[in-house]
Amino acid sequence: MRIGKRSYQAVNWHSESGGVQWIEQRLLPHRFEQIVSPFPEEVAVAIETMQVRGAPTIGATAAYGLALAWKADRSRYFDYWVPRFRSTRPTAVNLFHACDAMQQCAETDPSNDEMIERAEAYAEAEVAANRAIGAGLAEYLAVGERRILTHCNAGWLAAVDWGTATSGIYHLAHAGEKPFVWVDETRPRLQGARLTAWELHQEGIDCRIQADSAAAWMMAQGKVDAIVVGADRIAANGDVANKIGTYALSLAAKAHGVPMYVAAPKSTFDLGCASGKGIPIEERDGGEVVEMDGVDCKGEVQQIRVAATGVGANNPAFDVTPFENITAIVCESGVWRP
Amino acid sequence: MRIGKRSYQAVNWHSESGGVQWIEQRLLPHRFEQIVSPFPEEVAVAIETMQVRGAPTIGATAAYGLALAWKADRSRYFDYWVPRFRSTRPTAVNLFHACDAMQQCAETDPSNDEMIERAEAYAEAEVAANRAIGAGLAEYLAVGERRILTHCNAGWLAAVDWGTATSGIYHLAHAGEKPFVWVDETRPRLQGARLTAWELHQEGIDCRIQADSAAAWMMAQGKVDAIVVGADRIAANGDVANKIGTYALSLAAKAHGVPMYVAAPKSTFDLGCASGKGIPIEERDGGEVVEMDGVDCKGEVQQIRVAATGVGANNPAFDVTPFENITAIVCESGVWRP
Repeated sequence: MRIGKRSYQAVNWHSESGGVQWIEQRLLPHRFEQIVSPFPEEVAVAIETMQVRGAPTIGATAAYGLALAWKADRSRYFDYWVPRFRSTRPTAVNLFHACDAMQQCAETDPSNDEMIERAEAYAEAEVAANRAIGAGLAEYLAVGERRILTHCNAGWLAAVDWGTATSGIYHLAHAGEKPFVWVDETRPRLQGARLTAWELHQEGIDCRIQADSAAAWMMAQGKVDAIVVGADRIAANGDVANKIGTYALSLAAKAHGVPMYVAAPKSTFDLGCASGKGIPIEERDGGEVVEMDGVDCKGEVQQIRVAATGVGANNPAFDVTPFENITAIVCESGVWRP
Repeated sequence: MRIGKRSYQAVNWHSESGGVQWIEQRLLPHRFEQIVSPFPEEVAVAIETMQVRGAPTIGATAAYGLALAWKADRSRYFDYWVPRFRSTRPTAVNLFHACDAMQQCAETDPSNDEMIERAEAYAEAEVAANRAIGAGLAEYLAVGERRILTHCNAGWLAAVDWGTATSGIYHLAHAGEKPFVWVDETRPRLQGARLTAWELHQEGIDCRIQADSAAAWMMAQGKVDAIVVGADRIAANGDVANKIGTYALSLAAKAHGVPMYVAAPKSTFDLGCASGKGIPIEERDGGEVVEMDGVDCKGEVQQIRVAATGVGANNPAFDVTPFENITAIVCESGVWRP
């Protein structure tokens, strides 16, 4: 999607240098920087440290990273690199699907180029899925005054291109519908305020950032026509693991009869997982809650602590929303039912 | 309550200088500073700019400020100073009750000392009410494993002394019950992370800060035994205006059968207001959502912007929770019913 006048993807194969190129998302929205690396370990660290994040982008990055590992360190591919990439993050299932796909391809003893092509095909399939999701989703979002609420970043940064949740919003805008978006800031890492608002702004879509806990109150006042979020993993019974706060949102949506859609490519489904109870929820460091970074008045990045020293924080990164709280799960082939 | 080994109140009459003394709450938890002023305008600005905040503390500060105005500028008392103080904040009704009390006293043409005594009596009544609230509340909070969740700062900083919601927790702790507190950070101004966690820590009470949107998920996992919050205004039908996010919390509490208590002195009741629909909700500047301050690694205060420039924010400071979502409203004379 667009940044200024150019088109970008969150992650791609950088053929000029034979490496992986990704947008360093932790610097956004203050600084736009792409990193290129020929080292699979740097790609793994990029996933772990959330330089790239969002379930489909994590999967695509792992696929590219494993193509790189095949080229650079083939003898340790199965014993070291596949497990290395599988251990970078626990919740998003796309990561494991991407690792499975690259492992299967590697088992056929392919050339380096064939492995790169496999990774590119994996990423392109995600992009095609997102485009299809958006086309279907846009019909559901064309309700009321088109005031759509979203949580976290289920945008193109999270999903290579188009986004999952935002794909519906972008399709709506391209159809001339003029959507307005309430962007939950999404504590603790503020992916909504930092990434989603920036993405929407770059695409010329009107939006307003708000505290996550304001969402229910906006619904109570009849100011939300629909909610759309992404997913990190969807269990066989339709339970959805997504960014912390999604579950609270679903309770408010249910209380106010606001339709709540989950948008996700099939790579996010984990049919081997019977219900949400089986999805591992990543607990992240409490520092993410009590410390924050941003730019000061000179545009320089500063890290600050907001809370009292000596007090710890509880930081579950995801939660599970039961299928019964969700209006519909929209994937590339339409509405998915358990 | 305690800071280190000394006892303080959020606001008090400073008899040595004949002025009002308050804790500059915007500097907490990084710096503890008390301000003393002999100028009523500075006291009004302290309320407006949230140097002092919390419904009972706002009321007491206005009472002291109006005692100061009587002393300093009696001829403009009724025409200028009473309206000036009434306009400092819109939602907390304690402010208007304090202004009414000081106006009534002034109508009897009292001495300066009598006006100061009236303000001190107003503040002392709040403290006595809070102590009584806490004694009653502690019985309700002595459930399960005593894992209490609170939102915003309904602590002693917000209520001159003891606090409203925290008074129950402090009473529980003094009775040897060892409560544990989940502290909602409370975006956008982070009064939970900055003030409540600091207060509890000073009193030696174990607590953990969390993102507001994690609260529902902790309830879903059975890790919350009770919720207690304060109030900025309570309507005749029991609807409660309180910090944004309280309403979302009440929906989750209801969904999970977690008892949710509102703790408030009678000065917070507005029986002239039939329901929550009549309570004015303060909309504050969007900058509070997209900008933040804290201390850097050198301990110096920095202000940072976290969101993309060019994107605005929605910032309703309060919301209204319907009485039906609340287990009980606890005031100084016990459980209040509409």
